[in-house]
Amino acid sequence: MCTTMDGSKPATSSVQAHFRDEKYPPVVHPDGRVTFRLKAPMAQKVQIEPVNGQPENNGYNGLGSAPYDMVKDENGIWTVTTPPAVPGLHSYWLVVDGVRVNDTCCKTYGSTKMQTCGVEIPEPGVDFYHIKHVPHGQVRMQWYYSRVTNAWRRAYIYVPPDYDTHPEKRYPVLILRHGGGEDETSWVEQGRANFIMDNLIAEGKAKPMIVVMDWGQAPTPTQPIHIPSTPPPPEITEVTIKELIPMVDSTFHTIPDREYRAMAGLSMGSVQTLYIGLNNLDYFSALGVFSRRPMSDEEFGRFSHVFADAEAFNKKVKLFWWGAGTAEEGIYNAAKADVAKLARLGIKAVFVEFPGTSHEWQTWRKSLYDFASRLFWD
Amino acid sequence: MCTTMDGSKPATSSVQAHFRDEKYPPVVHPDGRVTFRLKAPMAQKVQIEPVNGQPENNGYNGLGSAPYDMVKDENGIWTVTTPPAVPGLHSYWLVVDGVRVNDTCCKTYGSTKMQTCGVEIPEPGVDFYHIKHVPHGQVRMQWYYSRVTNAWRRAYIYVPPDYDTHPEKRYPVLILRHGGGEDETSWVEQGRANFIMDNLIAEGKAKPMIVVMDWGQAPTPTQPIHIPSTPPPPEITEVTIKELIPMVDSTFHTIPDREYRAMAGLSMGSVQTLYIGLNNLDYFSALGVFSRRPMSDEEFGRFSHVFADAEAFNKKVKLFWWGAGTAEEGIYNAAKADVAKLARLGIKAVFVEFPGTSHEWQTWRKSLYDFASRLFWD
Repeated sequence: MCTTMDGSKPATSSVQAHFRDEKYPPVVHPDGRVTFRLKAPMAQKVQIEPVNGQPENNGYNGLGSAPYDMVKDENGIWTVTTPPAVPGLHSYWLVVDGVRVNDTCCKTYGSTKMQTCGVEIPEPGVDFYHIKHVPHGQVRMQWYYSRVTNAWRRAYIYVPPDYDTHPEKRYPVLILRHGGGEDETSWVEQGRANFIMDNLIAEGKAKPMIVVMDWGQAPTPTQPIHIPSTPPPPEITEVTIKELIPMVDSTFHTIPDREYRAMAGLSMGSVQTLYIGLNNLDYFSALGVFSRRPMSDEEFGRFSHVFADAEAFNKKVKLFWWGAGTAEEGIYNAAKADVAKLARLGIKAVFVEFPGTSHEWQTWRKSLYDFASRLFWD
Repeated sequence: MCTTMDGSKPATSSVQAHFRDEKYPPVVHPDGRVTFRLKAPMAQKVQIEPVNGQPENNGYNGLGSAPYDMVKDENGIWTVTTPPAVPGLHSYWLVVDGVRVNDTCCKTYGSTKMQTCGVEIPEPGVDFYHIKHVPHGQVRMQWYYSRVTNAWRRAYIYVPPDYDTHPEKRYPVLILRHGGGEDETSWVEQGRANFIMDNLIAEGKAKPMIVVMDWGQAPTPTQPIHIPSTPPPPEITEVTIKELIPMVDSTFHTIPDREYRAMAGLSMGSVQTLYIGLNNLDYFSALGVFSRRPMSDEEFGRFSHVFADAEAFNKKVKLFWWGAGTAEEGIYNAAKADVAKLARLGIKAVFVEFPGTSHEWQTWRKSLYDFASRLFWD
């Protein structure tokens, strides 16, 4: 039977991650330090590598930037304790004799181009993404066939707590997109979008709404899977506008109107939000740009037709939301500069910053919380 | 960008597993052989270990029983090709310099006490568990609070394709339980229970029904997670009978009556089906025992009060289904013997065998297909 180092229950990253019957799960200390352990008597070198830790590799990781060397004891057990990590869910790999692998302790998830494990550092006094004693919505897996890609797709659809008890009610819709390497499960399993919405709705801080989490890739059977690309491949726009939205409107109790439809996304998903949203303003009245990578002048230029008439844009787009964590420095500075650029064009945009958080889920949880609370109030 | 060995798209185990942007995903050859590859120039020894491959370790694995040694080439890439594997989803670990780990290529899942990767071998001419062009039900994540364990729980609930379009309709319920080390996601993500039900319903081979997949563990905050145990801890019975069933009956359009409620489970879940089901026959009229491990005379004796009046039992239990794959030899022989024992007691039970399949998902997919097709026909 697997146990933790101190015999206590393993730290779980969410109610979803309750299955962690782990040999040596990471132990999170009260001050945010994390102890990792692995039994590997035959190995020559074992490290913990924060995923995308190096800034030059698009990365920031709340665990740190460089791999941590582990130290072997006489029983062949390797150990390392990191310095205090910032709050949030941090992805990591084991590196055993030079090869990146995942611990059998953890249920992996998509992050960057590979699957990783994660360790959750609680944020003291912050619980808006925890499961609480409030009414809970459901997350519904919905399969639909895409003629654009000739493939079946699965969407995760959050319906608010009162959805089934008020079948006559119609709800606004938020299309919420994940980042590169992630999938339709990420906003629920890592982001806890459903708990964030439950809590917002329970406190009267957000309108009850349907949140649509679809896969942000649209490869045809003969294409490879696209990973972050600017501009996004045309297929993902087609799937979103011509297939996903009609499917949602015909299957769920939506208000099928641009005034009651928003789109937001993180990182790669924020690029999609800009390209899909700004080019289809007949479909959306609010856009959320979470942790957008720097946008070049040339790229800005691609939207000049949209930004040309600032007055019309400001009337049409009720909320143009940009945000970033201050610890994802390059992205934070770029997003701030982009919003300043927009202001010079007369385009109204909101910029929200999150102190100390990085290019990780804590920033995006806070982004969703802030963005969703501003939507659909008329 | 990660690619497969031959530049083709990686083999995916289901529509759910579409995110497999893998460095070297396993390649399944037409004859069922599987080639594994890993870049690990520094490693001294790399193996592929079929999970629970050794029969003495409760195990059978369609990939084989012993670890396969991989061979390193001049570029530090290790390779091995297995003999032809039997059809189905087979779990495996990488063993890098003596330590079991998971490849970053795969999204892991719970299996035995640890997370594993899996490789899916198609079964020629068998497609009842594939996603097809038929109406699809939804799988709904439902959170509920357990007073028994003082913890939130998540259930996966399959609702049939016509559920939302016929809100006046009431459906029978199948409580479907996973095996040891698995969780509420397993029957969908690995078992494809939803596609099996969609296909059965589309062909008129099963009554539309609600399938409830809950976590088969019920640790309190101070208890460890229980892994296969006979008898099951009392908490899981309490959660199932006093919390799960009432929650489902009050939340979904069920027929809240024993005549329209069944329970089934695989391996550890089959033990729970016997203990929970046979001791609560006021709640169930059909029981499915998938791949039950040998039951001792002493254990049989625990149900003597239930089997004492065979006539009453046969009247009450409309379907007492037992099944196993012929390749899980010990389990197959034991289940067959158990059913013979039951026959000697006058207890009617159905025994179904699946040629060539083992203690793996192909047996349980076929078990569900057969079992569900026999339920609720009045």
